[in-house]
Amino acid sequence: MKVGVLGTGMVGQALAGKLAALGHDVAVGTRDPQETLARTEPDFLGNPPFATWLDAHAGVRLGTPAEVAAEAELIVNATNGSGSVAMLESAGEQNFAGKVLVDVTNPLDASHGMPPTLFVCNTDSLGEQIQRRFPEARVVKTLNTMNCQVMVDPAKVPDEHDVFVCGEDADAKHQVIELLEGFGWSAERVIDLGGISSARGTEMYLALWVRLFGALGTGHFNISIVRAPANASL
Amino acid sequence: MKVGVLGTGMVGQALAGKLAALGHDVAVGTRDPQETLARTEPDFLGNPPFATWLDAHAGVRLGTPAEVAAEAELIVNATNGSGSVAMLESAGEQNFAGKVLVDVTNPLDASHGMPPTLFVCNTDSLGEQIQRRFPEARVVKTLNTMNCQVMVDPAKVPDEHDVFVCGEDADAKHQVIELLEGFGWSAERVIDLGGISSARGTEMYLALWVRLFGALGTGHFNISIVRAPANASL
Repeated sequence: MKVGVLGTGMVGQALAGKLAALGHDVAVGTRDPQETLARTEPDFLGNPPFATWLDAHAGVRLGTPAEVAAEAELIVNATNGSGSVAMLESAGEQNFAGKVLVDVTNPLDASHGMPPTLFVCNTDSLGEQIQRRFPEARVVKTLNTMNCQVMVDPAKVPDEHDVFVCGEDADAKHQVIELLEGFGWSAERVIDLGGISSARGTEMYLALWVRLFGALGTGHFNISIVRAPANASL
Repeated sequence: MKVGVLGTGMVGQALAGKLAALGHDVAVGTRDPQETLARTEPDFLGNPPFATWLDAHAGVRLGTPAEVAAEAELIVNATNGSGSVAMLESAGEQNFAGKVLVDVTNPLDASHGMPPTLFVCNTDSLGEQIQRRFPEARVVKTLNTMNCQVMVDPAKVPDEHDVFVCGEDADAKHQVIELLEGFGWSAERVIDLGGISSARGTEMYLALWVRLFGALGTGHFNISIVRAPANASL
């Protein structure tokens, strides 16, 4: 499948690399491809520049958001949350029409210090903002409740653990669950939370995630929803 | 230990009943004890009136918030989140000085429909509001991430799962962890998230909890934090 991944950071690299390894035809979108390729410094976490990553992933192409979105059959939003809507707008609204848009972003706002707050929550979510702005896209919020290495390799965390999908379009969620199975997720560990407004739940969980990250000293963790047997009472 | 439980709802009943069963001297505080005892109708969930519960728990006493807080060595806030600060104020600020105040509440706001939103989140929390209003209380936020039956009987959910503590006072958290062990929690499954501001994380998780409740069709669930081995990288 032709997949477009918007965003060249750690999350975009992890998802694009995994999708390419699974045999998909992957293009990565960035606002200014020449500027992205010209960077030679590691990022603030010490990760090598994008050009180094691209050299190591020969099948992956780089383009503008509009080029990448236009040719993609399925689009992954792996941009920074704070810039997501503008980045998607720059890709051209018509390029999302009828397509599955996998949104893995979080509305993190580090401008008030650490741990970050959210720039939208409680009565709205970034997932909903994106769905409202691109009404013809079939937005599925998923994978935003864990770090990007766990997203594409759930075995990084031992034992069983869970991933959520939220969205209005049942067929789009079904396609995304198949993608997740390709990443190594078992379909039984994918929890469908309902419509896109349930993205409020998975995004607000980030306030707990960042504190768990601090308390555990690792980003390699996830939650497992442990349930009583189905015949138990409320 | 003399324990005061503020709140006569399902959460207060569950906690007071468990504490009494464990041998503590338990009193329950309610704004108007006579009015509470005079109720003869089941609540909106069909639970029997408080007087019926009290008859079945002979050792538990009922009093005003001030009476209960004054004599208690440790106080549990199991009131409705929206009325918590006012209820605690009615108990008298001096009655909390130096005492451990176990806060299990959530700032749920159902006035906009279901699932509920939160009346405080993101840059503040109900736990912090209570600690600020009662600076001499030693507030520990805990147990607010699950239903009250799981709070007092973690075996209601199979397998291992986790509970959080948040607060400024290490000794108070230690006392609360001992209480939790009495409830059946293993100390290894108690995660200390840090200061009281980390209550933002556990309260905001409720936005996910209410949606999981909808998706799973049961309140008998909890999260288990599944971690990579300690030597794994970020």
